[in-house]
Amino acid sequence: MTEIEKLAYKAKEASRELSVLSAEIKNRALHEMADALITNKEEIKIINKIDLDKAKKNAITGAMFKRLELTDIKIEQMADGVRQIAQLADPIGETIYGYLRPNGLDVKKVTIPLGVIGIVYESRPNVTADVAALCLKSGNAVVLRGGSEAINSNMKIAEIINKAFCASGIPENTVNIVKTTDREAVMELLKQKAYIDCIIPRGRKTLIKTCIENSTIPVIEHGDGNCHVYIDKDADMNIAYDIVMNAKIQNPSVCNACETLLVHKDVAFEFIPKISTMLKESNCEIRGCTKTLALTNNAIPAQESDWETEYNDLILAIKIVDDLEEAISHIKEYGNTHSEAIISNSFTAIERFKSAIDSSAVFINCSTRFNDGYELGMGAEMGISTQKLHARGPMGLKEMTTYKYIVSGNGQCRK
Amino acid sequence: MTEIEKLAYKAKEASRELSVLSAEIKNRALHEMADALITNKEEIKIINKIDLDKAKKNAITGAMFKRLELTDIKIEQMADGVRQIAQLADPIGETIYGYLRPNGLDVKKVTIPLGVIGIVYESRPNVTADVAALCLKSGNAVVLRGGSEAINSNMKIAEIINKAFCASGIPENTVNIVKTTDREAVMELLKQKAYIDCIIPRGRKTLIKTCIENSTIPVIEHGDGNCHVYIDKDADMNIAYDIVMNAKIQNPSVCNACETLLVHKDVAFEFIPKISTMLKESNCEIRGCTKTLALTNNAIPAQESDWETEYNDLILAIKIVDDLEEAISHIKEYGNTHSEAIISNSFTAIERFKSAIDSSAVFINCSTRFNDGYELGMGAEMGISTQKLHARGPMGLKEMTTYKYIVSGNGQCRK
Repeated sequence: MTEIEKLAYKAKEASRELSVLSAEIKNRALHEMADALITNKEEIKIINKIDLDKAKKNAITGAMFKRLELTDIKIEQMADGVRQIAQLADPIGETIYGYLRPNGLDVKKVTIPLGVIGIVYESRPNVTADVAALCLKSGNAVVLRGGSEAINSNMKIAEIINKAFCASGIPENTVNIVKTTDREAVMELLKQKAYIDCIIPRGRKTLIKTCIENSTIPVIEHGDGNCHVYIDKDADMNIAYDIVMNAKIQNPSVCNACETLLVHKDVAFEFIPKISTMLKESNCEIRGCTKTLALTNNAIPAQESDWETEYNDLILAIKIVDDLEEAISHIKEYGNTHSEAIISNSFTAIERFKSAIDSSAVFINCSTRFNDGYELGMGAEMGISTQKLHARGPMGLKEMTTYKYIVSGNGQCRK
Repeated sequence: MTEIEKLAYKAKEASRELSVLSAEIKNRALHEMADALITNKEEIKIINKIDLDKAKKNAITGAMFKRLELTDIKIEQMADGVRQIAQLADPIGETIYGYLRPNGLDVKKVTIPLGVIGIVYESRPNVTADVAALCLKSGNAVVLRGGSEAINSNMKIAEIINKAFCASGIPENTVNIVKTTDREAVMELLKQKAYIDCIIPRGRKTLIKTCIENSTIPVIEHGDGNCHVYIDKDADMNIAYDIVMNAKIQNPSVCNACETLLVHKDVAFEFIPKISTMLKESNCEIRGCTKTLALTNNAIPAQESDWETEYNDLILAIKIVDDLEEAISHIKEYGNTHSEAIISNSFTAIERFKSAIDSSAVFINCSTRFNDGYELGMGAEMGISTQKLHARGPMGLKEMTTYKYIVSGNGQCRK
């Protein structure tokens, strides 16, 4: 057995014990873990500095450096996050449904953990703690393969977690770090189908692509979002201004931020001049279609490529459409079924939009920014799934489970 | 665009129209399809004869030949199956759950079709009709890639289906056959991630392996089952005899048939002699552990490989175990989490068994043969999924759907 195979095998062993642990034991361990993160705050920062110094040497700056850095506040937030997860309802052992068959068989569909979850991620060492807590709560063991840039921080955090877990009666090898950070290690991890039940990549497009193309284990994609807001001719204009500003400006770097605004031609003459001024005041660049350019001086011409770009930045593409159907066609052509919003008071328009758009979340008179586990009431999330199988949209604790059928009888045989 | 890319693209286009079709239209089309299969019975048999003649030339006989052959009865059964699917509840548009958030957002999680399902299958041309009906009912378009041995039958059936569907207002390209039957066609199909949402392989292990190793599209495995029945020391012996005979003999060639029998040592002296005689009378070969051999003359010695073999035949491996825990360990080591049964009257033993065993279905005092869509009340099934993501156990109409969130508000923005 190779190192990675051994790691995956041991995680599978641990997962069997984890699957039958009581919520009480798991929650106690999560509180122990939160306490340990706080107690070891200084040590975490010392180790984190090794990664930060390496980053400086490699000329890593700006947002990437920030993501790598563990401050007092970030460590406290990590611990708070873990305590919040401890408060959530246990997702295991829930009877999803149950019924009696005509022959007297009692059928129950009951939630169980997935088993072992493999996470391939980049830079942010706080992911290590978030993921460990979510996995324990959902009864899963986890194999974490972070990037080389954060390896020291990741290993330190995992060491603290494992110590706290062991003291609370959680099996060894519940949280496992792949220490080798080269590409070969990822490739090997993606082939451990015998032991790992699911791979979740978190990071850049290229990372996700590598996982999809090489994994024999099912992958749950957490991709980016090219999200649209459509302003219908029957929109309440005040709501429209608020929502466009919120969806674009409040946090432009995230996957549920708006990237393209579609405006019905009947309201464009009123809407475009005002929104473009508001966006300009928030330092947002506008790339508009020809019709948009005719209504504002604040825009530059949009290229074909703008319709398919997820800027993750203070840039917004704007297109004026003839009607709802053109908006729907545009979203189908350029969108990637993440989050789409319609602003309208027309019942007919809303019904058509919500049935024709098959995005993971469709928003009616509210912001695309609500496509989020906390905001939709799941309490915590592993990320936003952008695929159709198993989990769609926010992947909370429930989505980290599978199920089995328990069928009870008194001697029934098949005829 | 290549031929296969074009096919997949057109299927995606069709799936968009399909997703908003009413149950009424879909059900009418299914009845038209059933009628058309009956009306064209003679034509189907004539075309099927081309495939059968080819099979004879290739010296294909026995079960494989039988699977390929379409008789009057088989065609009538196909039509009946389609009519039954028409009677089932429509799985689309169901609100799985809904709630109000504190900020007034109304959240609904609603079922929608997966989109386009790709099926890679072998020999049995009746699968073409089953799958087409299940896909239409669940609002999905389908791309079917059958084997070369059944290509003429498959294409004829698809032609009849498409004609019936078109006459009923179903979009063109709902049912699509890949006409090229070489390996390259499968490889290309498995890369159409832009248009196909899910691949379901149905056939031999090698076929499933090819799909898992080469697909960039999520795969739902329908593998074999190495199913166990465990006779506890507190078992009702009459129930135990009945269930072992049913699980092994009633249809030994299927995935939910029993392959290994585990017997508690305290009841072995009573149980083994009688069951081995009963099995012998049904022409079932027994491969036993040393302790089993001491209790019957009807068995030959089991090899290590027997514990991991899915015979799909009238062969049963028998092992005497010291206790429940040894039975559980054996199942964990050799089983593949398909279907496992315990025969016992002990509440404690049953509770332990059902929590420790994470098979897709755990059976208590009833036969493993009930792991089946019809038997568990789903009305019809695509197959038995042997993986943990999305669908586990019988994959019925509900498991052929995904969901989206519909979030309604009156101007809510994220804080």
